Amino acid sequence: MSQTAEQELALAEESAPTTRCRILATAERFFREIGYQKTTVADIAKTLRMSPANVYRFFDSKKAINEAVVERVTREVEALIATIAAAPGLSASERIAEIVRALHSDCLERCRQNPRIHEMVEAAMTESWEVCRHHVDRILAVLVRVVTEGARTGEFAAEDPVLAAQCVHVAIVRYCHPVLVSQYPNGPAPPIEAMIAFVLRALQARPASA
Amino acid sequence: MSQTAEQELALAEESAPTTRCRILATAERFFREIGYQKTTVADIAKTLRMSPANVYRFFDSKKAINEAVVERVTREVEALIATIAAAPGLSASERIAEIVRALHSDCLERCRQNPRIHEMVEAAMTESWEVCRHHVDRILAVLVRVVTEGARTGEFAAEDPVLAAQCVHVAIVRYCHPVLVSQYPNGPAPPIEAMIAFVLRALQARPASA
Repeated sequence: MSQTAEQELALAEESAPTTRCRILATAERFFREIGYQKTTVADIAKTLRMSPANVYRFFDSKKAINEAVVERVTREVEALIATIAAAPGLSASERIAEIVRALHSDCLERCRQNPRIHEMVEAAMTESWEVCRHHVDRILAVLVRVVTEGARTGEFAAEDPVLAAQCVHVAIVRYCHPVLVSQYPNGPAPPIEAMIAFVLRALQARPASA
Repeated sequence: MSQTAEQELALAEESAPTTRCRILATAERFFREIGYQKTTVADIAKTLRMSPANVYRFFDSKKAINEAVVERVTREVEALIATIAAAPGLSASERIAEIVRALHSDCLERCRQNPRIHEMVEAAMTESWEVCRHHVDRILAVLVRVVTEGARTGEFAAEDPVLAAQCVHVAIVRYCHPVLVSQYPNGPAPPIEAMIAFVLRALQARPASA
């Protein structure tokens, strides 16, 4: 083993989580600037003054780096909607409305402000990367929690809260799916508030209006 | 003008609609077999024993042929849902349910049985060809008709039937949009019947179940 490799190994063992984080932060910066497809492991390694082999000690492949960056990006909105689901003083309807708005804004903002990161999330969705399935599962879990709570208190009429939550999730796909949001920014769709009201009518024990 | 060109012109003037139809039928066959991208105007012309110039007398460009084939393909389901919307003896809820099933089956079957035609419709949607906007407009018009009728008889509670119809259309995009249907055949989505029940709950004047 060369001296450099030994030094790298020592460094990696000392601070594995830190090194992992630095690789991801650097990768994300490259992805934002030149896109994930043009970024190479060599670029990332060079910026961090380490060998590509050392990057591969933390991530099996470039795809593993891509997936970890997508996970970082999607974890933010997951944390946000989990907070909304647990926030005190909101009705289940208000929670659903806020969650849908959060998912929509997150997708829209990334599409506008970080088009290259959005592109990567879009590819991840299209190619069904494992990380996306988990992201969708976690969103669904939050919706199930809120719908179940609404059914328990009688605010919602859902006989099967899991199924009802899946229906909510599918009903708002036009507003939260990276492919649809980016490809049809001006496509025909009612305003999101109208769609939220529609979804709540489907959930609520009594019609919202007589 | 060469003799052949003169003969072609005479033929075209005699039976312009027939020639147009034959060009489209031939194009569609090629599209089914080798895909619309690999099909050339020369292929179509050769099969019909005419010059490419003659094909261009009926269609400005290859894209115009593509669009006309997409229109032929999408007109079928439009005719089907228009028939459902006007069929006697059905409630508005039954009409909505049948229309959604028809749109879903149409998309699913094309995806399975004519993957290359599906691919073309998918590209047409993604690239927002004019013909797709019209297709979506015509589907929406049928939904508006049924929701308006349901609101008139008191079956639906929709205050704004146009907006409610748009919400129905957006709610079912997961089941009827070529990109979503083909890219996530096994993706997470409730069974279509559950989604239809959900949408009807949002529309109906009273909850479907107590």
